[in-house]
Parts: sequence; C-alpha cells; structure tokens
Amino acid sequence: MIQVAINGYGTIGKRVADAVRAQPDMEVVGVAKTRPNFEAETAVENGYPLYAAIEDRMDQFDDAGIELAGAVDELVATADVVVDACPSGIGADNVAMYREHDTPALLQGGEDADAAEVSFNARANFDETTGADVARVVSCNTTGLSRLVAPLQEEYGIEKVRATLVRRGGDPAQTGRGPINDILPNPVSLPSHHGPDVNTIFPDLAIDTLGLKVPATLMHTHSINVELESAPDADEVRELLESQSRTFVIDEHMAIDGAGKLKEYAQDVGRPRADIWENCIWGESITMEDNDCYLFQAIHQESDVVPENVDAVRAILGESDAAESIETTNEALGMGL
Amino acid sequence: MIQVAINGYGTIGKRVADAVRAQPDMEVVGVAKTRPNFEAETAVENGYPLYAAIEDRMDQFDDAGIELAGAVDELVATADVVVDACPSGIGADNVAMYREHDTPALLQGGEDADAAEVSFNARANFDETTGADVARVVSCNTTGLSRLVAPLQEEYGIEKVRATLVRRGGDPAQTGRGPINDILPNPVSLPSHHGPDVNTIFPDLAIDTLGLKVPATLMHTHSINVELESAPDADEVRELLESQSRTFVIDEHMAIDGAGKLKEYAQDVGRPRADIWENCIWGESITMEDNDCYLFQAIHQESDVVPENVDAVRAILGESDAAESIETTNEALGMGL
Repeated sequence: MIQVAINGYGTIGKRVADAVRAQPDMEVVGVAKTRPNFEAETAVENGYPLYAAIEDRMDQFDDAGIELAGAVDELVATADVVVDACPSGIGADNVAMYREHDTPALLQGGEDADAAEVSFNARANFDETTGADVARVVSCNTTGLSRLVAPLQEEYGIEKVRATLVRRGGDPAQTGRGPINDILPNPVSLPSHHGPDVNTIFPDLAIDTLGLKVPATLMHTHSINVELESAPDADEVRELLESQSRTFVIDEHMAIDGAGKLKEYAQDVGRPRADIWENCIWGESITMEDNDCYLFQAIHQESDVVPENVDAVRAILGESDAAESIETTNEALGMGL
Repeated sequence: MIQVAINGYGTIGKRVADAVRAQPDMEVVGVAKTRPNFEAETAVENGYPLYAAIEDRMDQFDDAGIELAGAVDELVATADVVVDACPSGIGADNVAMYREHDTPALLQGGEDADAAEVSFNARANFDETTGADVARVVSCNTTGLSRLVAPLQEEYGIEKVRATLVRRGGDPAQTGRGPINDILPNPVSLPSHHGPDVNTIFPDLAIDTLGLKVPATLMHTHSINVELESAPDADEVRELLESQSRTFVIDEHMAIDGAGKLKEYAQDVGRPRADIWENCIWGESITMEDNDCYLFQAIHQESDVVPENVDAVRAILGESDAAESIETTNEALGMGL
C-alpha cells in the first residue's frame, strides 16, 4: 500500500484525502493543517491522523481540544509521497522540506510551473512524471482544457485553441471574494495565464485564453473554440468526447442549463460533497463551422483535479501506467455521470 | 423640425425621447405607454404629451390621474417618424398601423430582421436606410459588435470574428430575471443569434458568436477575437479604435476594472441615467497574436442604441448624411468619455 501524506486539508486536500482512502492500493498516513478550524475537527472525526502544518502552532490545536499526531515534518518523513494542497505559493516553499526527507511531492496548479520538474495531467502526459522528485498537478481550468485538447489533438490535429474562461468569483465557502453584480475582465491584459499553463502539458499547442470573473460560486464555464486541422462533423466530435472517461457530455433530455442543475444532479446521484470530477460538456453546444469546433464546458473548480492527484501519486512513484491508473481511480471513485 | 413620436416609453423609449429632445433639428411630438406606471407619470412630468398605446386602456390612465393627449393612433398620424420602443415582438405587430398612416417607423433590435426592410447601424450602413418605410435599429450587442467590426474591416480586412458575449442576466429594474449564482450557456446551441444579426449589417462577414448569461445587471461584456487579414501591432489597433467617435478606450490609469466602475464614472461625469452610449474597450486588453486581435469590451444594454435611434430618424427621412448626423447627435448628447 502506498503511504500518502496530505499537507493542507482545505478545499483540495480534504477531497484528495477521501479519494486516496478509496483506492485499493493507497492509504492516507496522515493530513496536516495550519489551524484548528472545522476542517481540522472533521479530519480527526474522519479518522485521519492529524499533524500541525506549522510546528509553532501545535499549542493552538491543544487549546481547541483537537488531538495531534505530531508535526508535518514527521508526517513527511513517514510517507512514500506527499500531496501538497497548501494555498498557492506555500507549496513551493515546502519543496525544501520534501527534498530534505527525500519524499516525492505533488504540488497543485496554483504554484508556478517552475516550482516543479514537470506538470501533470493524467490523460495527456502521465508518463512524464514518473521518477520526478516534485511534480505539479495543473489547475482546475488547465485540467479541463487539457482533457479536451488531448483527444481533439490526437484525432484531428489542432491549428489553434481560443478559449474564454468565465470564472466563478470564488468557491462557495470563500466569503470574502467578489465580484458582486459585475463582469470583470480578469486579467485585463491578454492572454490570461491559462494558455501558457496548458503549454506546460502541450508545449507546441497554439492557444490563446481570455479570463473573466463573475458573481457565481458553483463552477467555471468555458466558451471554447478549437480550430481543427480537419473538419469532422459535430456528431463525430461529440462521440469522441463521450468516449473519454473524464468527460460528461450533457444530453439534451437532461435539461441541465447551468452549474446549478449540474450540482443538483451531483447531489441527487450521491456524489461526495456534490463533487463533479468530470468536464461537463453541453452536447447541444458541440458545433462545427468549417474547421472551427465550438462548445461550452463547465468545470468544478473544487474537484476536477482530485482524480488527477490520485493518478499523479501512482505516476510519480512509477507504480502504474496511465490507462491502468485512470481505470483504478475512476472505479474506486465511481466516476461517470 | 422633425416631429418624432415614440411608441413605448420603457428602458429604451424614455432614453430615446430625451435624446431626440436634445437634438437641434427634432422635437418629441408625443410618447405612448401601455400602462399608467411610474414611467407614464414621469413622461408627463417631463413635458411629453402622453398617449395610450392601447386604446382600451385609456380609462386606466384616467383612474390613475394621469392626463392623456389621446390614443397612439392619433400620435402616429401626426408624426413625421415613429420610433417603436415596445417590448420585443410588439413592434412587428405595430407595423401595420404605421403603414396605414404612411409614417416611417424604426423598430428595435428585439424584432426579427425581416420585420423591417433594412437593419441599421450609423457607423456601418447609414445610407441603406434612407427612404425605407420600416427600418430596424439593431440590438445593443449587435450595435457594439458593428461599431467594432466597421473600422477593423475597413482598415485591415477581417478573416473571421469569434466572440463570446458574457451577458447581464437582466437590467437593474428587471426584478424577475436570473440567474442567481450561475453561469448559463444561453443559448446552449451554437451559434447564438448575435452573429447572424451582425450579418444583417455586414452580409459577407464570417462571424461566430457564443452567449452566456451571468448574475450581473450593469452591462454586457464581450470577449472578442477578430482574425484580421493583416497583422498590425496592438498600438496601431488601439489608435484606430480610439479615433472612433462611439468607442471609449479605457486607459490603464483610470483603474476601471469592470462595469461597476464604468457606471460610477458615468454618474460622476453627470451622464443622464448614468448612461454609457459608447463601446467601452479596455485599452490594456487590445492584443495581437499573429493575425488574431483580442480585446474585451463592455456594452451598456440600456443605452448604446440611443444615439443610433437618433441617427436612424435622420437616415430614414433622408435628412442628413452619416457623418453630419453622427456629429450632430454626438454633440447634442455630449458624447465622448
């Protein structure tokens, strides 16, 4: 069993912990948290050995009556691999500690690409991560774009991708975020960082991305144009996307018009935390105009990287090939809507 | 003086009435309204002769103590031209009445293109409307796209336009509209009607548009890609757009990040109803990647068609040429931010 440590037990960390625990070949050796908040409490209730992410703050956990197993240093020393799910920027700072203990580490997409040796997407470049000391699972939006680009590039070739990312202002629990009642070009200067980030997975891809932020919290929505090298008909493209294991092509009969109904559906089918690990592509929107493919997809920013982190654990340790890992992860999680 | 009737005194009609009244060569002969609501009251307070848009409802105005000058039929008979600003669909129904009185009429962009003989944008095709019985001033989004397309096409040639319209869910006063906390592909099937609508102004233009609705009320925001036939540098494109009379290129130093600050600025400079008649283009966003021009622009859905309606009055009556009319309109309104 692969002993996995999770440093950072927030939005991503707690989901990765549960996903790792569901795998037949992994166990969670412990999770680390900076503060004794509600997430720290539930970590203990869920049976995860809890470590203080900052040694100086161990007293705070004592004061809050939350039992610690130790400090993060000990956790990293014990683990076969650590998934760093700390806030953006902290992960890069933690790399020295991981290297000190010679523990392979996975960073999240909020870190700069050069904080890691390689950037990871299971569908696109699983093998490149094997044997790395530090790899980076790309962000939710880059994951969503990579899953779409990979099959289209393999099947038809891509001239250029042009994508507008209509981004949720914040996650549901991020009470301090905005905007309220506005549509903000963000960043105003183009291109946004997402295109260059996709290039960490597909170095030769021509891609321009534009980002906006809006007053919504549930999911991002991408307005996608992929100029293909050939001109398949839309039905063929739809079948290709339906055949992928981490895309959910929304059928017209479901009458799902946006993120609200997608999350409602995820709740109704019993998904943990109403998570949607798949790219949600509106089938009706898949359109070809000459070589230009257009579509809309919604991306659940809190969870689409979760199965990718699980696969990245196997990839960095060389424990599996891509197809086998993806299948194992998907089956353990119950992927497929 | 051109005698202008305004049928429909809601969001657009009341603004057009004020804009017409500000012109040196026009006067408002009267406005018509279906219901004796607050807008009917302010029409009378503003000194506009008020007519009942539906003859059967004249009693309702009496009951509300609002003085009527008559029924809409009489208003249309008196006028040189009627601007129909009724809700979408009603304008087309009204055409028979306008024809009966031989009064040239302007419909709004919510009507189907074939309800009129010609579609109108002052910058792009002013002359085509002269002598028509019924013309249609295209919608706010189509106006915004047309103003952008015209100079780019003239100066550089256009291979293709690809635009994502991030649309406000409703106007500030439309209390029943949505979405709340969602991002809705709308329409889900592509392309949206906006591209074909731009083709009523530019018949040969290759344009694909995608629309989404978000929880915002202040303005639409367009994420634009124009693939040009040549590759000017971004500064040159910016200068071209700055030279247009109905585009406002937002300079970086203003620190305007979205529609909220744009409207605040419009209030501060004393614009009536905080209206923004111009396309608001973020200067920083104007970017060239090879032949691909990208930019963000915000469009004030309640008012960008107002100067267009004023120009269309002159165009349909053959009272002016485009340059002269646009200059007169702009000067009378105080255009230019």
